Amino acid sequence: MVETITLYTAKASPFAQRVELALEESGAKYETFQVDLRNKPEWYAPKVNPASKVPAIAYGGPPVPPSQPSPESTKLAESLILLEFVADLFPTSHLLPKSPVQRAKARFFIDAVSTKFLPKFLGFVVRGKAEGGEALYKAIEELQALIEGKYALGDEWSIADAALTPFLARLELSLRKGFGGFKEGEGTKLLGRLKEGTKFEVFWKYFENVTQRESFKKTFDEDYLVSAYEKRFGNLRAQSEKKTA
Amino acid sequence: MVETITLYTAKASPFAQRVELALEESGAKYETFQVDLRNKPEWYAPKVNPASKVPAIAYGGPPVPPSQPSPESTKLAESLILLEFVADLFPTSHLLPKSPVQRAKARFFIDAVSTKFLPKFLGFVVRGKAEGGEALYKAIEELQALIEGKYALGDEWSIADAALTPFLARLELSLRKGFGGFKEGEGTKLLGRLKEGTKFEVFWKYFENVTQRESFKKTFDEDYLVSAYEKRFGNLRAQSEKKTA
Repeated sequence: MVETITLYTAKASPFAQRVELALEESGAKYETFQVDLRNKPEWYAPKVNPASKVPAIAYGGPPVPPSQPSPESTKLAESLILLEFVADLFPTSHLLPKSPVQRAKARFFIDAVSTKFLPKFLGFVVRGKAEGGEALYKAIEELQALIEGKYALGDEWSIADAALTPFLARLELSLRKGFGGFKEGEGTKLLGRLKEGTKFEVFWKYFENVTQRESFKKTFDEDYLVSAYEKRFGNLRAQSEKKTA
Repeated sequence: MVETITLYTAKASPFAQRVELALEESGAKYETFQVDLRNKPEWYAPKVNPASKVPAIAYGGPPVPPSQPSPESTKLAESLILLEFVADLFPTSHLLPKSPVQRAKARFFIDAVSTKFLPKFLGFVVRGKAEGGEALYKAIEELQALIEGKYALGDEWSIADAALTPFLARLELSLRKGFGGFKEGEGTKLLGRLKEGTKFEVFWKYFENVTQRESFKKTFDEDYLVSAYEKRFGNLRAQSEKKTA
């Protein structure tokens, strides 16, 4: 029997959105608590996640308000572990296929997201590394080669899609609006290269498929992110991008 | 129904031994092929693992000699993905517990091995970083705090133990024999600190429990490793260590 689930999350965090997507797709009943990442509650690290990061789940235990976590609930963390946890809790949902081979392929896709795509995403979008745009372009090319159909594994949405989608959505937004550590103009330039011709047709069709799902729309708040990025990357760039948009 | 399993492995590789441990513990019937890591067969990367690493599994397909892999078998790679794959193939074995919470704890332990222990292990033993011994000492202290009982999760051996044991066995051997990138004498010095008093009692008891299993004895070849390490780290150090042993 599934016990109570409280998800500690934050709208800005792509890692947390991964778990929100899985919970939505599983049909789980769950409660959420928004953690203010710039001003975390004092009780969060000692009572929920010693690493002080989102996402985290408090599972089971007596009914308590999320801000007063019970020592009797089990605390779990790390977004990819939580994706597997939600899939294990709801084995009859479509979060992971039944076949061991297909499950291995889902995990291989997730591993590629972690080891090949994310470092290049962070390198260009967050740290604005020189040559970062080219490295990210190549990483997206490699990622596209792993997409089997409508979703990562083919016809069925899975936690492989949950692992990637929050980062793709933030990437597209960052490039389109010019928010990031990269030099002014570099975002729209990369987006232009990715939209040119049919080379990334599979990738963009995939992007459409995953972002059109109800689970995505419910857990992605573009206005909130734009305002958060404006604060983080400064108004100047936002202004100059608006003029050229 | 479980199909044929061919494991591409190498005695020197702790990553490959992880999967050998899981296969042994699962009771699977499987064939192995030893890949010569210094002189890989030409067909290995194109036909088995494009990343050209061990371990890899060829699963299913027609009966063929391992050196002539069939395009009809499924090729899978990455040691941690293969651990989950073996657990999925043999769900009634004890490789992963049934409870979603316990499964999440197994994965959390494995994640700590990958992100906290392994970088310090490689830093000291392989790269011989200055201050590496102290960092490794602390990583072992943190690791020890995660051990729940006889095995990582308590009474039952699981893939959490498979993920760690091959590295612990190589660590103990490297320190004891003085093989590694670290300065002469630094290995036995760290080993002495780890054996001093009762601070690491839980750790050493754990070490004994995991290395006494038949699965370990069958898949760990100390003589082979000593001879491989002698070639790699040079005879000089081996000689000087023998004198002081």
